[in-house]
Amino acid sequence: MDLSYRSTISIYKSILEQFNPALENLVYLGNNYLRAFHALSKAAEVYFKAIEKIGEQALQSSTSHMLGEILMQMSDTQRLLSSDLEVVAQTFHVDLLQHMEKNSKMDVQFISESQKQYELEYQRRATNLDKCMAELWRMERARDKNAREMKENVMRLRSEMQAFVSESQREAELEEKRRYRFLAEKHQLLYNTLLQFYSRARGMIQSKAPRWKEQLEASRNPSNSH
Amino acid sequence: MDLSYRSTISIYKSILEQFNPALENLVYLGNNYLRAFHALSKAAEVYFKAIEKIGEQALQSSTSHMLGEILMQMSDTQRLLSSDLEVVAQTFHVDLLQHMEKNSKMDVQFISESQKQYELEYQRRATNLDKCMAELWRMERARDKNAREMKENVMRLRSEMQAFVSESQREAELEEKRRYRFLAEKHQLLYNTLLQFYSRARGMIQSKAPRWKEQLEASRNPSNSH
Repeated sequence: MDLSYRSTISIYKSILEQFNPALENLVYLGNNYLRAFHALSKAAEVYFKAIEKIGEQALQSSTSHMLGEILMQMSDTQRLLSSDLEVVAQTFHVDLLQHMEKNSKMDVQFISESQKQYELEYQRRATNLDKCMAELWRMERARDKNAREMKENVMRLRSEMQAFVSESQREAELEEKRRYRFLAEKHQLLYNTLLQFYSRARGMIQSKAPRWKEQLEASRNPSNSH
Repeated sequence: MDLSYRSTISIYKSILEQFNPALENLVYLGNNYLRAFHALSKAAEVYFKAIEKIGEQALQSSTSHMLGEILMQMSDTQRLLSSDLEVVAQTFHVDLLQHMEKNSKMDVQFISESQKQYELEYQRRATNLDKCMAELWRMERARDKNAREMKENVMRLRSEMQAFVSESQREAELEEKRRYRFLAEKHQLLYNTLLQFYSRARGMIQSKAPRWKEQLEASRNPSNSH
């Protein structure tokens, strides 16, 4: 029982002192990740804006009109990809980071209290059991005729204690498992959102690339003046 | 002819004073883009390293072992995606930016010289034509019997001048077109490389996600202690 008690306490401590701080740290790192993502989006936007401007110049030339069109489509495509990827970033921000932050804050109190309640209840039951066992010993020495009833009482209390301790350990393990699963499910969501983006992005480029290839090959034909 | 001369000169000027500086600027912006990309890779690596550490903790727990495995696989998958995306960044760096930079440097001299050679040759032919036309006028006034031969000479020179001017304009337009096409083809390469990445990334996640889904659902089953 004592082993189980220590094991249960150590799970609560582990959630409070290892998992929760790790989760808070993850939120911090996740916000860095988000900031870096937005910096990249910005750099991409500026780069393809410059491509677009060169495309506009080509549109005004006499013989490079088609090439200007291609450059501008390439710039537009990047804009679409970027705005699509922004949806993934939003999922990461709201569904993961904000949720993880909220949970980690709530857990500080929730887990402390769960641990405390367990300790108090364990103490209460252990004290009661000790008291009854001391009383039983006294009754058996005095050959008290109610000793047998007390013995049954003690055995019942012991068995209830056992059940309480097992159940409490199971509950603590479940709390721990819930938290790992929460993390895994959040990142499953992230990967699924990313997968959807990759599928759409692939489709977007596949719908444009053959035409670009065709037009670029045609632009090498000397009879094509545009 | 004068119109064509101005048009040809303006194309060379446009390449030198607009296209080439725009290309240099693009290289500068592209390097910013690359730096932002590497900062994002780094932030992603740190984030998923933290996920991995939490996964390792779960592996050591009594009931969350499977969830630990999932978290570590999620971390590994990100590592693979990242290293795959690095290939796209390398293509951008070497095949686009470095090549664009090299070309823009070479062009400063190449285009200036092409323009100069055109101006000199045009001047030479124009001066020669003027001289012959002045001579023809003198000969016709003096009723010189060689006037007709000179007239044929002048007509030939005029026609050659016309051909030279048309050909030069066509060449200048072609130089301009080549440069726009170079830019479009470079970005076609980038998009194709990106497309390959999206296809592989999609396959990578699709190969992992069903098993994660299955395992996460199974972890909710109370009879599963791991």
